[in-house]
Amino acid sequence: MEKLIRLKNILEESRMIGIASSRLMWDQSTEQPKLARGEYSNTLAYLQGKNHSLIINEEVKDIIDSLKDDDSLNPIDKAILRELKEDYDRIEKIPKEDYEEYARIRSLSILAWEEAKEKNDFKLFQPYLEKTIDYKKRFIQHLGIGGHPYNALLGDYEKDITVEDLDKFFNNLKDELIPVIKRIAEKENPTFDFEKKAYDIDKQKVFSRFISGYLGLDYQRAVLKESAHPITYGFSNKDVRITTHYYLNNFLSSIFTTAHETGHALYEQGISDEITFTIVGTGYSMAMHESQSRLYENILARNKNFWIPIYDKLQTLYWDNLKDVSLDDFYKCINKSKPSLIRIDADELTYPFHIIVRYEIEKLIFEDKVKISDLPEIWNEKLYEYLGIKPTGFSDGILQDIHFSQGYFGYFPCYALGNAYASQFAYGISKILNINECLLQGNISKINEYLRENIHKYGKLKTSKEFLKEISGEEFNPKYYIDYLKGKFSSLQ
Amino acid sequence: MEKLIRLKNILEESRMIGIASSRLMWDQSTEQPKLARGEYSNTLAYLQGKNHSLIINEEVKDIIDSLKDDDSLNPIDKAILRELKEDYDRIEKIPKEDYEEYARIRSLSILAWEEAKEKNDFKLFQPYLEKTIDYKKRFIQHLGIGGHPYNALLGDYEKDITVEDLDKFFNNLKDELIPVIKRIAEKENPTFDFEKKAYDIDKQKVFSRFISGYLGLDYQRAVLKESAHPITYGFSNKDVRITTHYYLNNFLSSIFTTAHETGHALYEQGISDEITFTIVGTGYSMAMHESQSRLYENILARNKNFWIPIYDKLQTLYWDNLKDVSLDDFYKCINKSKPSLIRIDADELTYPFHIIVRYEIEKLIFEDKVKISDLPEIWNEKLYEYLGIKPTGFSDGILQDIHFSQGYFGYFPCYALGNAYASQFAYGISKILNINECLLQGNISKINEYLRENIHKYGKLKTSKEFLKEISGEEFNPKYYIDYLKGKFSSLQ
Repeated sequence: MEKLIRLKNILEESRMIGIASSRLMWDQSTEQPKLARGEYSNTLAYLQGKNHSLIINEEVKDIIDSLKDDDSLNPIDKAILRELKEDYDRIEKIPKEDYEEYARIRSLSILAWEEAKEKNDFKLFQPYLEKTIDYKKRFIQHLGIGGHPYNALLGDYEKDITVEDLDKFFNNLKDELIPVIKRIAEKENPTFDFEKKAYDIDKQKVFSRFISGYLGLDYQRAVLKESAHPITYGFSNKDVRITTHYYLNNFLSSIFTTAHETGHALYEQGISDEITFTIVGTGYSMAMHESQSRLYENILARNKNFWIPIYDKLQTLYWDNLKDVSLDDFYKCINKSKPSLIRIDADELTYPFHIIVRYEIEKLIFEDKVKISDLPEIWNEKLYEYLGIKPTGFSDGILQDIHFSQGYFGYFPCYALGNAYASQFAYGISKILNINECLLQGNISKINEYLRENIHKYGKLKTSKEFLKEISGEEFNPKYYIDYLKGKFSSLQ
Repeated sequence: MEKLIRLKNILEESRMIGIASSRLMWDQSTEQPKLARGEYSNTLAYLQGKNHSLIINEEVKDIIDSLKDDDSLNPIDKAILRELKEDYDRIEKIPKEDYEEYARIRSLSILAWEEAKEKNDFKLFQPYLEKTIDYKKRFIQHLGIGGHPYNALLGDYEKDITVEDLDKFFNNLKDELIPVIKRIAEKENPTFDFEKKAYDIDKQKVFSRFISGYLGLDYQRAVLKESAHPITYGFSNKDVRITTHYYLNNFLSSIFTTAHETGHALYEQGISDEITFTIVGTGYSMAMHESQSRLYENILARNKNFWIPIYDKLQTLYWDNLKDVSLDDFYKCINKSKPSLIRIDADELTYPFHIIVRYEIEKLIFEDKVKISDLPEIWNEKLYEYLGIKPTGFSDGILQDIHFSQGYFGYFPCYALGNAYASQFAYGISKILNINECLLQGNISKINEYLRENIHKYGKLKTSKEFLKEISGEEFNPKYYIDYLKGKFSSLQ
């Protein structure tokens, strides 16, 4: 009992340092003045180092060992111990100096990436990428998990998924979807003049705020800002922050980016009060998180029925641009499929191939089969192989995503997994609720409630496997994702 | 040498924790969602406690003792040691538990104050105010400085000023200015219809941004946001953040609030690179800080010549409201003197009496001559005595300022001192530069440069006394302030 209290005090201290450090990162992405770039790298490294030494020490190790099999613990405490033990086993193996130095590099790396992307110059980023990868490789060595080296990285984002599982999943997608993409490519591409017109940024801000609220985001407990790469921070279920971005000639990007981050945010707002301040009080995994963002972005917000009650609002807001655009054309536009260069703007059908490119590159990196300087070219070749197009430079190729700069290797596959989970969850929900009916009635709260009660509130108290099983009645099965995409895109085109 | 390095490492650690804690406070004032109120009180208390124990311990004490008289130190290190020793002597006397508990109360107190102000209900705030005062009284006891108990509080904001000095200063103001205020009150008050018209908030934001930039704020190193009580945070000379507020029917408030905070921000942006990350790398004292904010707000931005080059810009922005308003009328309006309830909206002439009310109340509190529940009434009576008006409730009376909630007792007098310093500095500058000429030419950078080179860059390397002496040629002399006010307001009215 005394040990449990001591452990909770330590975890609370760690949570507070974590809050400080993630608040600084949030600030770095959304607000800090231009010339203050890099000024907080040391502070972040320091706080993260503090947190590391707070958790990784003999005392905590002993407490975990003595409590981990204690059957008298309540289910939440058991989950905390299980989670901690797993994290501990991973983190403990990494020396504190490596951890601190890695944090420092990471915080410089993001700045280098931003500049490299802005200047379309891979060379500016390459040394940071190389260092980041070196550290990741050292971490894999330290972890000593065995099997394919990439498996150790996957574990950070979705447990129990291996390179073997992913190879199978992605081959399945290639077999089933490449023919569909080819078939669409053979047809004439519909064009929608309204899409790339100028849309006032202030109005885009108003609509982003509206649509996130319409989807259920509670602004008494949320903040919406802007950043280069859209992101969600869940500080607690009462303080969830999202960003989006606004482009004058691409108003759809802000709408669907906002819907996407709203899905993440609803997950974090839905965590139950009992666990919100604990280490199990957050989304179960990156793949689970992505399942929620994709469910809101694609399955709901790209559904025609979603727009029926609100399309006139959008039309009125941008009357000059949209007065002659029918809902039907709008719907076709937001679901047109065409190979494109930027992952986050890709349509649902071609999206997984952006992931496959990244996955295959990351595998090559950690199999030591590639020189970092060759990556941009490999990227371009792979994209050409799957989607028949090539980036014009680095910024719309290998530099487009923040992930490499943050050392998030093993993260990308979770986006595709999240999409597949989302379809499987939607299949499960539709056994209870008529999703189209809810959307038509503007009654999204029913869907939100279902997800909150069956997924969100649990945080890490249940696993992806359990959620999938309970909601759909079966194990992970990509069939629902493939069926969803084939059904939607064959009826659309 | 080894000791100095060790000390610098400790100070750097303390700076980083300070950054984290003040970033959370900044966030609390400007951004956090409504329902997250109070969620970071413990984190702030924890970080502030950490910082306390980092500095207040035997090791640091020994280092300070062994270095404080070391003549081989360079001037910056000497100043750091001197500053640290002074802070140390004060803080060391306060037990860590008191310090932590006080920080926790303070962070709850600000929330209680916000709610009390919103609901116009002093009772909601009273218990927090009482606790805050209790802690302050304990701190005074711990400090054991002797003399009037209020002297110990003054020391936090301006050293070497005592109750005796302030009594003299304020009596001087009363003698000289009350007759002027009475004389103006006897005349008919000019009214300016345009003043309280509706001014679009988005346009106010645009103009705030413009005017702060026009005054010299470098937005590559600054952020402008909103908060209930306007404030400036200087994280370093490359990251200075200010807030203002916007009222639909009071556009002048946002203009002069922004000019005021810009003055503070220019001080912090002007700190030299050599000292920006050290404890001497910030404005010398609150009174010095206020001298800069008041110089920009009043002596520059309320000067007619300031508006001559830019009034058409303002007029064009708000054409419907200002098209028939002459610059002359605008100038008279921004300088009209009329007793009013809210300190931060008070005109220059009546302003010091808002301070005198607060000063006299604070003295009563710390002389133990008053019950906290009686304060609202005493406030109202004093305001009536000096300015002939009474608040309608608590929100426009005793609850109007954030200071009591933050335990900033002894702070208010520095506002009046700052005003007086500002006039004395302006007198000094005018021996070198023609201020009116600079304003007419829109050449404010000359004034900025003078202030940066003669005040800002030094941070805490020089004292108020030294700045006053070097710039004006004499000790602090309220004459310049009184002359400025009497001159301005007798020619205006």
